[in-house]
Amino acid sequence: MLSKMLAIKSVMKQRQPRFLVSLKVSYSTYKPAQPLSVKDINQKTVHAKYAVRGKIPIIADELNDLIKKNPSSHGLPFSKIVNANIGNPQQLDQKPLTWYRQVLSILQYPAIADAVDYPEDVKERARVILENIGSIGAYSHSQGAPYIRQSIANFIEKRDGGYPSNPNNIFLTSGASTAVSYLLQILSSNEKSGFLIPIPQYPLYTATIALNNAVPIGYYLDEKNHWSTDPEQIRSLILENKQKGIDIKALVVINPGNPTGSILSKQDIIELIDIAAEYGIVLIADEVYQENVFKGKFLSMKKVLNELTEQEPETYEHVQLASLHSTSKGVSGECGQRGGYMELIGFKTEVKDVVFKLASINLCSVVSGQALMELMINPPQEGDPSWELYRAETSSIHNDLEIRADLLYRAFLEMEDVKCNKPTGAMYIFPKLDFSPEKYRKLFMRAEQSNLQVDDIYCIELLENTGICCVPGNGFGQVEGTYHLRTTFLPPGKEWIDRWMEFHQSFIKKYTS
Amino acid sequence: MLSKMLAIKSVMKQRQPRFLVSLKVSYSTYKPAQPLSVKDINQKTVHAKYAVRGKIPIIADELNDLIKKNPSSHGLPFSKIVNANIGNPQQLDQKPLTWYRQVLSILQYPAIADAVDYPEDVKERARVILENIGSIGAYSHSQGAPYIRQSIANFIEKRDGGYPSNPNNIFLTSGASTAVSYLLQILSSNEKSGFLIPIPQYPLYTATIALNNAVPIGYYLDEKNHWSTDPEQIRSLILENKQKGIDIKALVVINPGNPTGSILSKQDIIELIDIAAEYGIVLIADEVYQENVFKGKFLSMKKVLNELTEQEPETYEHVQLASLHSTSKGVSGECGQRGGYMELIGFKTEVKDVVFKLASINLCSVVSGQALMELMINPPQEGDPSWELYRAETSSIHNDLEIRADLLYRAFLEMEDVKCNKPTGAMYIFPKLDFSPEKYRKLFMRAEQSNLQVDDIYCIELLENTGICCVPGNGFGQVEGTYHLRTTFLPPGKEWIDRWMEFHQSFIKKYTS
Repeated sequence: MLSKMLAIKSVMKQRQPRFLVSLKVSYSTYKPAQPLSVKDINQKTVHAKYAVRGKIPIIADELNDLIKKNPSSHGLPFSKIVNANIGNPQQLDQKPLTWYRQVLSILQYPAIADAVDYPEDVKERARVILENIGSIGAYSHSQGAPYIRQSIANFIEKRDGGYPSNPNNIFLTSGASTAVSYLLQILSSNEKSGFLIPIPQYPLYTATIALNNAVPIGYYLDEKNHWSTDPEQIRSLILENKQKGIDIKALVVINPGNPTGSILSKQDIIELIDIAAEYGIVLIADEVYQENVFKGKFLSMKKVLNELTEQEPETYEHVQLASLHSTSKGVSGECGQRGGYMELIGFKTEVKDVVFKLASINLCSVVSGQALMELMINPPQEGDPSWELYRAETSSIHNDLEIRADLLYRAFLEMEDVKCNKPTGAMYIFPKLDFSPEKYRKLFMRAEQSNLQVDDIYCIELLENTGICCVPGNGFGQVEGTYHLRTTFLPPGKEWIDRWMEFHQSFIKKYTS
Repeated sequence: MLSKMLAIKSVMKQRQPRFLVSLKVSYSTYKPAQPLSVKDINQKTVHAKYAVRGKIPIIADELNDLIKKNPSSHGLPFSKIVNANIGNPQQLDQKPLTWYRQVLSILQYPAIADAVDYPEDVKERARVILENIGSIGAYSHSQGAPYIRQSIANFIEKRDGGYPSNPNNIFLTSGASTAVSYLLQILSSNEKSGFLIPIPQYPLYTATIALNNAVPIGYYLDEKNHWSTDPEQIRSLILENKQKGIDIKALVVINPGNPTGSILSKQDIIELIDIAAEYGIVLIADEVYQENVFKGKFLSMKKVLNELTEQEPETYEHVQLASLHSTSKGVSGECGQRGGYMELIGFKTEVKDVVFKLASINLCSVVSGQALMELMINPPQEGDPSWELYRAETSSIHNDLEIRADLLYRAFLEMEDVKCNKPTGAMYIFPKLDFSPEKYRKLFMRAEQSNLQVDDIYCIELLENTGICCVPGNGFGQVEGTYHLRTTFLPPGKEWIDRWMEFHQSFIKKYTS
């Protein structure tokens, strides 16, 4: 020990005489400090959970590495991972839309506009965007380029039948995740701030609530009734939590639903708005799947709110609504480009100013993603040179999704002890593993012994046997004693579904015999 | 009031009979809730300050709007805003590098590779990136695409003379801001967590510390000695704050300096590492300006740490260092593309796992920005088809910056009562407004009356009279009773500098006569 101290001393002396002065103070006790462990860091960050990229996807990544490193000798019973854990269409076989990518290529390198044989509307749109926002390599306004915000406002007005949208209320974000992060951050005043979230939910919400040390209050969606909302239950939860001293800040609504794949009815939406109006609770409408609708019709919460306000301004004019959209979903599927926006309706300017400050600390969202959002909400129209191809590509993606959803849904219907609502939107199915403790005694015993849940075991074995990666229902929340899983229906073909069905049979056999 | 209640009741009845049940409870007291005001939201978000896009840049935006809307009748004594408040080169006249943008255009629309006359190395690099990471429209690994992380690791090894870099320690981020956000979030255990930050500092740090409810501890850079660090002062601050019960988590170092434009010597760096080693404090090395060096040489903190560890492993092997880099600065200036990375050295895996979780909640950083980072750190080499143009463009940008820095520096030297260190790096100058209360009695009186600081008044009047937007020193921190401003030296030409000098004379005349 002494020799080490002397060594330190001698080096310090060479380099920095001043160091010796302070070393004298603590010289006899000096030892190099150890690196931080998890107990030394922010416990909120340690305890937040995010299942979509949690333990099962991490195992899948490791298996994937194994396959890549040893393509012919990995020893696994499958040759590739099927990532059904995340709505990431271009990771699978979905091609980007030509319209988006041609314009974006010009935005990256404007000189090619003259060198390649792009349709005139592609060149024209790129020209207009560049003229209005300048180089996509410059920081934009922190809230998003004004030109793009105006274009989004026009889209919202058109989508909602003419109700006005103000570009000053629109914030371009990095996907919808940043929007959720800003909203939950400003609304989490203290550890008594509560957020009503659907169960099952997209775990971004519980994770972000945990990071902000706020209280998640789960309201259950009604599985027996196409995952609809139950306003009575929400009202009871509000009263119950108010009595406990919880200050409920916001009601999160995901429509179309993730992970449920369901679409809310107008009546459901009205009831949720009524609750917000009565209790002064902010509505967070996660509407990123608004283009992913197979059956029925997507109704934006803003449109319904505007209709109600028209009828009864005094009741509804103070409702605060944040509506979120993204370039990652829809038929766009441009997840990696990180485009998104939120519209803040009914918020005081002083509060929007705080959101603006948060955005400005991050400087701006990626400008190519902002441009992509513009291309998505303002696509070619009939008669435009790009129209035919755009229409063909988008219809094909839309049809593919519908066909894939239906194929997978039918497979679940056939599987023993699996129940499933028909998906009507989004990119997911959330089937129920209807396993009773009596029939599946061995499975429940295994769960108890291994400290895993029944749906964890199912998903782990599914992955290990087939390479199919999906997420256990407990990562999204489910009624106590029920078990689900979330899978996307994005992977192409039927072969993976056949493998799943085969696995399912052997799983049942294994744990019931 | 009664008629309103009846109206609500009748509408509720039509729509939602269940609502009436709960309405009965609170019927007599029902009134629509009011929107949130700033007092109702998270006070940490309300009180965080971010001067770079704060009040003066907001006035500049408004003036800019005024000019755009009334190009010939705005009534202002200038025809455009000169944004010297932010290092945003492509907002001014800097052109993007052809190499970056040609490759990125192919990544956006791979089919053009065959249609345009790009150099072979451009096509080849795009091909390799696409082969390794797939579509840039897919989410990547949350930490960043493995291929790109490996390429960055190779760059770091080469930059630092062969010391190894592990791609598992590299996190791709959205600019450097997200890296700062992750680090400060995990390190802020509670309201006693302290962060040593340079004064003057880049206000991202104080803003993020405020958002995390942690304690900023400013250590002053020595203006008289080229803004160097004073280790003795830092050690005193550590002891002093430890006595107050502050748990000091990290020491932030910005090198080359923002806003100071100075470069730390090797001796300075060694002393900072010694402090980290002794007290187990994480080093956050903001090295985003590492390519912006006119005089002297940039030495990465990691290289110096590795040299020290080689000499004395016991003392230095546990030092934890986070090194940040970005595509926004350098000769790249691709701010809007939001590329960046951090390397975490010496951190326990369990702690890196928590950073990974935070990254995964945001899914991934923009993939085109990740690719841009690869293009930046792995540029064309001598002999490659793109080399000559790349060399010419980068030298020209580098030279322009040096010339502009020098022009502006000389102007400040000529200005009465302004003192200034010669900028040797980064993109900024932080001149001192050496105004004494005696000589500038009127100015100090005005400050007192208007509740503004002397540097606020200077910057506001500069903006109002010339259109030049820069940021008062108080937004970055300065020794009590001293006044500075931060300006970039990016705007081209000398005309704006002449206007500034003219303004300065009249300002002095106004407040001294």
